[in-house]
Amino acid sequence: MSKPGRLTEQISESEDLYPTRGREEKIFERADPVVYGDGQPRGVHSLTMEQLDFYARNGFIVIPGVFSQQEVDLFNDEYERLATSDALKGKDELVLEPDSNQPRSIFSPQRFSDVFNRLSRDHRILDKITQILDSDVYIHHARINIKRALSGKSFPWHSDFETWHSEDGLPRCRVLSAWVMLHENNEFNGPLYLIPGSHKTFVSCAGATPEEHHKASLRKQEYGVPSIDALRGLCEKRGLAAAHGVPGTLILHEGNTMHGSPDNISPAARTNLFFVYNSVLNTPAVKPFAAERFRPEFLGSRDFTPLQSLDNKFA
Amino acid sequence: MSKPGRLTEQISESEDLYPTRGREEKIFERADPVVYGDGQPRGVHSLTMEQLDFYARNGFIVIPGVFSQQEVDLFNDEYERLATSDALKGKDELVLEPDSNQPRSIFSPQRFSDVFNRLSRDHRILDKITQILDSDVYIHHARINIKRALSGKSFPWHSDFETWHSEDGLPRCRVLSAWVMLHENNEFNGPLYLIPGSHKTFVSCAGATPEEHHKASLRKQEYGVPSIDALRGLCEKRGLAAAHGVPGTLILHEGNTMHGSPDNISPAARTNLFFVYNSVLNTPAVKPFAAERFRPEFLGSRDFTPLQSLDNKFA
Repeated sequence: MSKPGRLTEQISESEDLYPTRGREEKIFERADPVVYGDGQPRGVHSLTMEQLDFYARNGFIVIPGVFSQQEVDLFNDEYERLATSDALKGKDELVLEPDSNQPRSIFSPQRFSDVFNRLSRDHRILDKITQILDSDVYIHHARINIKRALSGKSFPWHSDFETWHSEDGLPRCRVLSAWVMLHENNEFNGPLYLIPGSHKTFVSCAGATPEEHHKASLRKQEYGVPSIDALRGLCEKRGLAAAHGVPGTLILHEGNTMHGSPDNISPAARTNLFFVYNSVLNTPAVKPFAAERFRPEFLGSRDFTPLQSLDNKFA
Repeated sequence: MSKPGRLTEQISESEDLYPTRGREEKIFERADPVVYGDGQPRGVHSLTMEQLDFYARNGFIVIPGVFSQQEVDLFNDEYERLATSDALKGKDELVLEPDSNQPRSIFSPQRFSDVFNRLSRDHRILDKITQILDSDVYIHHARINIKRALSGKSFPWHSDFETWHSEDGLPRCRVLSAWVMLHENNEFNGPLYLIPGSHKTFVSCAGATPEEHHKASLRKQEYGVPSIDALRGLCEKRGLAAAHGVPGTLILHEGNTMHGSPDNISPAARTNLFFVYNSVLNTPAVKPFAAERFRPEFLGSRDFTPLQSLDNKFA
């Protein structure tokens, strides 16, 4: 078992529990638990047993009111400041819209902003994450996503873990996303769609990962996407769900939950802030499972320092 | 006043009540009534006074259960037959997807199919249309739209009437769409979004109509689209609505109601059948109001024969 601060030791091919990017799509059951340990609360902001059960069955949970409107206002101000700050200018972490030069994504905002750094360790989030993953965690990946009014583009269906395993080398599915709605997410502005229960099935996607895949996949993902038959199979029992909510809503979203989002033709933008928490017992293997090289550090972090929880009040 | 079967006499520029495609966007109040005449029922399938009032206020109404599932099954079978029939092969009326060669739209299906011809005159539709427009009507335009699973593209916001006036020469807004859901339309498969009440405002769009505009606009509309500020203004009071419903649902949708639709990333296709009914007292002027030439006949009909209502039972 790996220790924090180090790569996980070499994992032989026979130990690859989630082989993917082969010649054919394959579908098999998840090898890992969804809730690690006994699921007992880790702090005052842990999930209730009912919430935990919902998460375990569905692979996600939408929790309104975790952050106040005043706090969200402050986060939005901080985003505005960051988007135009010199710190990000010309960096890979800042991805602009090709036609308007406005930000589309800011990666690792917690590395450029004290507010977002503190938010990434907020006990309202971490009490839930450590309860689910039963270990200390670090941030594998983080971003602010802005889906512009009228022109925000759709994102095809995928499992994040399929990429984190194949291209970032995370051995097991002991990782999840926690994200905060900075704007209202409603049925009109390109909300996240999820397939409830899909986290229990791994879709091993067809097609070898091309070189420098992340450069294309940040614009449009073409590898690591399931077939329409696989999607229909996943939807068969319980259909689709959408993550709607007011600003300040927190969503926990298991690493392997199949999700996508349509474009935003509404006249309102949709901005969300994502943190991906990985267990310190699940640091990357010495090489990725289905790619020649690791993705760059701003997409898959090499800083495995366990996060210390903070009792914040932002506003 | 024009007679059926003839173009409306020359209308001078000073009589153009809806000038559009000029240098700047302008916004003004609709010059025409929404419900013509006294709105009294024309037949057993007319709208109730409550439904008519809803339509007059909102510019649309969604009416479930107008056609039975058995009838819709028959319509879908007829669509499948038509899509592969020799009658349409190579014709402008059949628009294929560039990447899959599957139909994206079939125009004027009522000219190629007895079933759709009878449906276009069904009294469950016409009793409502003639009640609203207070005159005989003919079909100005008709189409089946297929929004493919996973890949069906979005359509930007627009008022149909803005195009029918500027490019097809319809003098007044005495025209509306009636459309039948052939598949379920839900929040996930790219449903129609509408701005309630927007039919009472005319957005005079900026930009002169290019030559042969319809060839580009069938793929992506760039002229005749409102600005984001105009859209926000229209949404200010009452926000957005979506047309959801089971197969067989009928939607009436006033010619000037602002609408658009997002892409369809769901694994289910979304197919709808549209008929545009224009008053025989509102046939095209001798030239379009803001284009050099009329659009072709399959987009703007020259057959002004009043429709005789039929008491169909399809299945």
